[in-house]
Formats: sequence, C-alpha cells, structure tokens
Amino acid sequence: MAMKHAAADRLDATFLALADPTRRGILARLALGEASVTELAEPFAISQPAVSKHLKILERAGLISVGQDAQRRPRRIEGKPLAEASAWLEQYREIWEANFARLDRLLEELQRTSSPSARARKRRKRRNNP
Amino acid sequence: MAMKHAAADRLDATFLALADPTRRGILARLALGEASVTELAEPFAISQPAVSKHLKILERAGLISVGQDAQRRPRRIEGKPLAEASAWLEQYREIWEANFARLDRLLEELQRTSSPSARARKRRKRRNNP
Repeated sequence: MAMKHAAADRLDATFLALADPTRRGILARLALGEASVTELAEPFAISQPAVSKHLKILERAGLISVGQDAQRRPRRIEGKPLAEASAWLEQYREIWEANFARLDRLLEELQRTSSPSARARKRRKRRNNP
Repeated sequence: MAMKHAAADRLDATFLALADPTRRGILARLALGEASVTELAEPFAISQPAVSKHLKILERAGLISVGQDAQRRPRRIEGKPLAEASAWLEQYREIWEANFARLDRLLEELQRTSSPSARARKRRKRRNNP
C-alpha cells in the first residue's frame, strides 16, 4: 500500500510538472543534451529566476537531475518518470483506439452516403426501378 | 502557430487533470463503462460536490463527456486527450530506454564484480598467479 501511494505521488508530481509549456520546452531542450540554467533561460522570454522555479518543479518530479560540474551545474533529463507516465497512459490504449475506430466508421458512413458516386448510384437505381 | 498553441493548451489541461489520484481513479472506473456522479462518488471517501469539482476538471480537459440520458447524465471516458498525451511522451522513449540500458549495464557490472563466483574466480586467480 505504501508503495502504491509512493507510485501515485510520483505520477502526481510528474503530470503536474508536464502541465506547463515552458517546462515541456525545457525537457525538449534537455533531450538534445545537458544545459546550464543560463543556457536553458535563453530561448524563453522569461527571467532566470522564473526558469529556476520551473527547474525546481521538474527536479522534484525527478524529471531532471543536476550534473557533476560544480561551476555550470548542468541540468540533465531523466527518463524514468516519463516511462512511468507513459506506462500509466498505455493502460488506456484500448479505449482511445476504440474511440478512433468508432470515428473512422462514422466518417466512412458519412462519405458513403454523401459522395457523388453514391448519389449517382442512387439516381441510377431510381431510374432502373421507378 | 495558433494550432500549436491550441495543442499546447490541450496538453496543459490534460496533464493537469491527470495530476490527481482521485481523477485518475475516476478515469479507471469510467474505463469499465459509463457511470453517474453518484456511482462515481461511491468508491471515494469524498463528498459528491468534491467529485463534481474533479469531474469539471476532467470535462474541461475533454477526458470525459456527459451521455444522452437527461436523468442520470452518465459520464463517459474520452480517449483522444489520452492518445495526445501518450504521443507527446512517446517522443522521449529513446531517452528513457537509453537511461534503462545504462542502468542495466551498471547493475551487470556490479554483479560481475561482487558475485560469490566472481570473488572465487579472483581468489583462484590470486592463488594461481601469486
């Protein structure tokens, strides 16, 4: 039970950390390689303290870690929480695939009943069987 | 650009909605079939208004919809936002697989150097090549 709670807390922290475009942008940058806080702040139109706040949230979720270099303190992306979030979502694959299949059938049905050839077929049918 | 923003907003809403154990519990229940607010409140030790608040957050993220029945107003799970969140995470699969591979190599290395047979091999080696 304690382990179950710990896993739930980790998912809470991970999903909360991912619920922000700047934080997702920081992860996208770190996916290319480690970077210092200054380097991470550059592409975003926000102050370094604001970036630091985002980094703290990412760090708390275990999504980033701080590298060895004491001067640069480079941030590195950590994959484990992303793998856990992905595994959680994976449970619902059947649901969304069923949703998409239903939508595909609906669109097909709409196309069949409203396409020019379908209308022509209906006209021919009417002509042949008045 | 507008579309890009809309997609980012949707991801914000989806990840925020998923960052709570009760809301994830509600989705797990709805994965088994649609349910009314009363039915959804039952397994959770929280009030119906509290459940309604969670449902509003899930609805805003498009993760649930309200069914036809005007009396019961059953809630239904919607797969699309889950598919979008999963697709976003999928971009990072290479990262977490590389992380896990590195960890596996490290563990293997540790086992090789500290297993009884490894130590026995070392002892034998020392005896044979003093």
